[in-house]
Amino acid sequence: MDIAIPLFDRFTALDAIGPYEVLSRLPGARVRWVGLEARTYESDRGLRIAVDTTLEEVPAPEVLVVPGGMGTRTLVDDPRMLDWVRGVHATSTWTTSVCTGSLVLAAAGLLDGVRATTHWAALDLLGELGAVPVADERVVEVGKIVTAAGVSSGIDMALRLAAKIARPEVAQAIQLVIEYDPQPPFDTGSTAKAPREIVELVRSAALD
Amino acid sequence: MDIAIPLFDRFTALDAIGPYEVLSRLPGARVRWVGLEARTYESDRGLRIAVDTTLEEVPAPEVLVVPGGMGTRTLVDDPRMLDWVRGVHATSTWTTSVCTGSLVLAAAGLLDGVRATTHWAALDLLGELGAVPVADERVVEVGKIVTAAGVSSGIDMALRLAAKIARPEVAQAIQLVIEYDPQPPFDTGSTAKAPREIVELVRSAALD
Repeated sequence: MDIAIPLFDRFTALDAIGPYEVLSRLPGARVRWVGLEARTYESDRGLRIAVDTTLEEVPAPEVLVVPGGMGTRTLVDDPRMLDWVRGVHATSTWTTSVCTGSLVLAAAGLLDGVRATTHWAALDLLGELGAVPVADERVVEVGKIVTAAGVSSGIDMALRLAAKIARPEVAQAIQLVIEYDPQPPFDTGSTAKAPREIVELVRSAALD
Repeated sequence: MDIAIPLFDRFTALDAIGPYEVLSRLPGARVRWVGLEARTYESDRGLRIAVDTTLEEVPAPEVLVVPGGMGTRTLVDDPRMLDWVRGVHATSTWTTSVCTGSLVLAAAGLLDGVRATTHWAALDLLGELGAVPVADERVVEVGKIVTAAGVSSGIDMALRLAAKIARPEVAQAIQLVIEYDPQPPFDTGSTAKAPREIVELVRSAALD
């Protein structure tokens, strides 16, 4: 099971590492980190991940996971990235994204008229790129395309995917291995739940 | 707010990236990735993170986050790492760990007779190193020492910590930014909840 995760500058670390931590534990999984060039890519908060493999060296992974981050705003205009995504999708078993990674799928033309999600602050942008934005589902599955909402939702998406790729018992075991029994200290993880002033605090960009 | 996250070979990626994604968003936060040497460190599943800074270059961070992974089994015998952890703890505001990162705190002598947690499969080992292992709490706080359970629990721990370091509203806003509204597909994230056969599947080491 070949899994490809494309990286780029200004990716969001947890977008990529959440699904990685789950999917890399599937029996027989091989995760390939790929990039436009083989070099180190820096996340939006300064983490640097080394990438040895270029996009063209992994033309046909079975699973594609596109993470998000501010860097996607550049990627949506990058013909080489979009060509690669289209090519991968032609033969993939699963084409997936986390957070604003779905903007890249949309820019590649994969989401025209398709229900999909993204980070809550980017739903309008996703619509402008041709998708049908879904605001109230954390993971949206349409055929072989699976899009997840913001950042941490990639963990939930990957566990669902793991259950489809392997037996559900394997996904359940992976959930136990990563001790994913979440106990968030607050109930502010979505715009529907967070108080208005918290939403405004985030929208004011003081935090991101 | 200087935050140090030591890396080493065979760390578990999500142990480190969960808290990183939360704490790096605190206003004024500066996260330093540090290592015994300035080089690239490889996770237990092959992810490679670049580290520019040695332990000795960051002698007094305000927050220490020690991630876990199989590599901790070597670290607990590394005098340079243990000396650094002791030195950091002498002046830190918060000394924390995720997963088997607490084994390193224990080996450094910080947890003698102190309630602490770790990955569920390492609780006995934590006890052998002098701590009082706590099986049924996801985040254990004793004074300025905060230990989190396995892998994904670092997200919960970091949000709790963020609320103490900044205002609770800031932590709530960070939770919204990372859209942490978990919807795990199964209820198998702890040994208390997972069916016996899932626990056995993990213990048989087929998955880890």
